Amino acid sequence: MEILSRAEIIKAIDAKDLTGVIEEGFRAYSNGMSVIPPVGELLFEKPPGEVHIKYGYIAGDRHYVIKIASGFAGNPSLGFPSGNGMMLLFDSRTGMPECLLLDEGYLTDVRTALAGAIAAKYLAPPAVQRIGILGTGVQARMQLQYLKPVTECRRVIVLGRSTQKLEQYRQDMEWEGYSVATTTDAHDITETCSLIVTATSASLPLMQADWIKPGTHITAMGSDTAGKQELDPMILARANLVVADSKPQCMVRGEISHAVRRGLIGETSVVELGEIISGKAAGRTSASQITVADLTGVAVQDIQIAKAVYSLCST
Amino acid sequence: MEILSRAEIIKAIDAKDLTGVIEEGFRAYSNGMSVIPPVGELLFEKPPGEVHIKYGYIAGDRHYVIKIASGFAGNPSLGFPSGNGMMLLFDSRTGMPECLLLDEGYLTDVRTALAGAIAAKYLAPPAVQRIGILGTGVQARMQLQYLKPVTECRRVIVLGRSTQKLEQYRQDMEWEGYSVATTTDAHDITETCSLIVTATSASLPLMQADWIKPGTHITAMGSDTAGKQELDPMILARANLVVADSKPQCMVRGEISHAVRRGLIGETSVVELGEIISGKAAGRTSASQITVADLTGVAVQDIQIAKAVYSLCST
Repeated sequence: MEILSRAEIIKAIDAKDLTGVIEEGFRAYSNGMSVIPPVGELLFEKPPGEVHIKYGYIAGDRHYVIKIASGFAGNPSLGFPSGNGMMLLFDSRTGMPECLLLDEGYLTDVRTALAGAIAAKYLAPPAVQRIGILGTGVQARMQLQYLKPVTECRRVIVLGRSTQKLEQYRQDMEWEGYSVATTTDAHDITETCSLIVTATSASLPLMQADWIKPGTHITAMGSDTAGKQELDPMILARANLVVADSKPQCMVRGEISHAVRRGLIGETSVVELGEIISGKAAGRTSASQITVADLTGVAVQDIQIAKAVYSLCST
Repeated sequence: MEILSRAEIIKAIDAKDLTGVIEEGFRAYSNGMSVIPPVGELLFEKPPGEVHIKYGYIAGDRHYVIKIASGFAGNPSLGFPSGNGMMLLFDSRTGMPECLLLDEGYLTDVRTALAGAIAAKYLAPPAVQRIGILGTGVQARMQLQYLKPVTECRRVIVLGRSTQKLEQYRQDMEWEGYSVATTTDAHDITETCSLIVTATSASLPLMQADWIKPGTHITAMGSDTAGKQELDPMILARANLVVADSKPQCMVRGEISHAVRRGLIGETSVVELGEIISGKAAGRTSASQITVADLTGVAVQDIQIAKAVYSLCST
């Protein structure tokens, strides 16, 4: 069994465009070609922590993948990141382990950022004047980095609560080639941005429906468990198009679950990202539409990125 | 993260008595001190295969354990074993991986054999004249090996379908210090043995209820999935004591599930092995009783043996 370290994995995928790999995963998922059992979960109380096991395969594939990811909120006070993770890749004809990817959660970050880029590719309006980012953490950075091939826009405004973290974000992202303004008022985002990405751990809405201008696309990716929420559910009711990475998953977690539970949108009005990628459903059809993509994270992304890394490292 | 190979693991536990470790696991399980979510499962069709993910922890423990085990029936024709497996041990305060045990299924074999030895320790009659083994595979061997500390009896009769495999089994187990007869007729087992272990992959009963003599203990461990069966369910109805490794699991798989489904025994009459170990329920109370232990394999055994191996290798 091959064992790849985080450093080796980062080196292997450096500057590689894995958008197509993740798109292929969403397409297979929405076509019913993937086998993805319910997520396994272990919860801990003292100290609080959670472990998720996501696993499955795409029909006909040479490999199946098991991802083990953990989040322990108290870790930073001990000096290491709250999140951790690894992926295991097995031969689907024999069960033999072929590769252990000790990515420490890095590949989850990458596949999540790639999903955001794909959502923007199909849903953002044609001309983006400014990108709005809510949040200053790892995903707030990676979402912006992975938007580079999708839009030529390099003007950004970022929202955060801590001026120190906003300033650090500004410096880091300017180094990446962006021109970055900072704010603590979400109105500054909705008034000036037509491509907005929410990447916070908020449990209450950060933006209200009547703030959103026509021609805006919002990718909400912070809300991945039942208790989290970043958007006023009325935004989804007002949107011309609401897109889920996984319809079944978004019915129980994420922004869509809040809107469906309150009867503001119907299940049938939600379209899957994979359906848009494969042309079975339309994406944005006019510059003035409001679109929302709700990304909760699907095992098929893990399967696809693990296969891609293994393939890059084996050749 | 420490990585242990199968060879290192075999060396580490060589001649170590891990009975107490597994007993402690069953005790914690029956006391409700373990957190064990439902088994994760992936099934494959071409070629046929199955993957099981068993995981959990014991309350207050330093570690949680995830086991990934696979069975692909076509593997031997490709030159390697049908079964494979690994265990992962994590720090339950941080989620950090501490040890990968690449045992290739060996530890599952050991913890299964240890459960058989524990069942015999609490349930076999005081004087065993002859041990009966059904099956000639890996578990048919390991069950016998692990019975050594439990009984002084070294006379064995083994049942199998292939004379070649029976002869091989006889030679191997005589080398282990047993005197071994072979048979293809299960009557020879029931008539001469008071401690019987079934370790086959049968899907139809191998022994009928009226063959079983008073004073017999049977450990059935071959039937671990819903489709398998080794005993006439009337044996369980006739038994004075029916013991499960896990009551909830034995209600859906194993010998007990067949007997309960047919209304031959009641759920409430089944006792858990951990209850007997902890003294909350009685084991065998007279030499003439018929007792049956149905072992389907519980994640708490994996948790305990992984912790034990890690501890042995860390010191």
